[in-house]
Amino acid sequence: MPGKEVVILRIGHRPERDQRVTTHVGLTARALGAKGMYLAASDKGVVESIADVTGRWGGDFFCEHNVKWRAFIREWKALGGVVVHLTMYGLNLPDVIGDIRPHDRILVIVGAEKVPGEIYGLADYNVAVTGQPHSEISSLALFLDHLFSGTELAGDFPGAQIRIIPSRAGKRTEEM
Amino acid sequence: MPGKEVVILRIGHRPERDQRVTTHVGLTARALGAKGMYLAASDKGVVESIADVTGRWGGDFFCEHNVKWRAFIREWKALGGVVVHLTMYGLNLPDVIGDIRPHDRILVIVGAEKVPGEIYGLADYNVAVTGQPHSEISSLALFLDHLFSGTELAGDFPGAQIRIIPSRAGKRTEEM
Repeated sequence: MPGKEVVILRIGHRPERDQRVTTHVGLTARALGAKGMYLAASDKGVVESIADVTGRWGGDFFCEHNVKWRAFIREWKALGGVVVHLTMYGLNLPDVIGDIRPHDRILVIVGAEKVPGEIYGLADYNVAVTGQPHSEISSLALFLDHLFSGTELAGDFPGAQIRIIPSRAGKRTEEM
Repeated sequence: MPGKEVVILRIGHRPERDQRVTTHVGLTARALGAKGMYLAASDKGVVESIADVTGRWGGDFFCEHNVKWRAFIREWKALGGVVVHLTMYGLNLPDVIGDIRPHDRILVIVGAEKVPGEIYGLADYNVAVTGQPHSEISSLALFLDHLFSGTELAGDFPGAQIRIIPSRAGKRTEEM
């Protein structure tokens, strides 16, 4: 989204078990206005899947793996960025999104099942999307949608090879 | 949510490959105000996972498997319910949610990769959450949040054995 740099840091990813969910996290981030995803694990499969989508569907979303999360978070904060950690234990989204929205550089930490306790202290905001167990994918989607106030739903993806022509029924696409 | 009956129909589920994603679909539906999920496949694992969460975290969300989707959709419509199909090929969420919101009985079809073409014709609304590829989990989350206008984020789950006490940092829970 113009004027805001929102990036995802995915931690706790286990290469076999989490590949599909982490790919969904990355594609959700891309579709809903984030600039890219850093993966704190080694998984070329995720990087390639997301690069394939970006190549075909446009925009310049990036995905990097092998990121050292602790050093990365510290550097992000040192450069003036804010850190949001999505966790069911945090403060509820509607209660904190107004405080987060004015920030221009936002790192969103999306954990898999096991998140080091240190993350809670490093984050400027621990944010819950309801205090119920569901999915990091839906939490990220709602966080981004509330952050961008829905404007990201009409996002633009320049350089696409293909785009969908919205239809009442059926599938219509246009090759560019 | 009071006054509205929203249920999910999950189709195209393949028991080995999709168990985790379908469970995330069900838990997202539960956390965000739907009443239950019908699964058009045989998968006791999904049913049990969701029942475990409901037993511990409260509310009366249900999950049934072995549902015949064609007969189920026809019956839903015959009884006056409306059918929404989430698909990237549909009309964009912000353009149609205002037409859908007045309905009281809403069936939301959430497909996995392969969805029979017939579904597009059976649906009253084919709805896209952006025309970009991402995740059926994030699509469902945004659909429910826009349908309920965010009120579901403060949802109540009576009969819980455990609940989270929202915290700025750390994990606090309360056993009931």
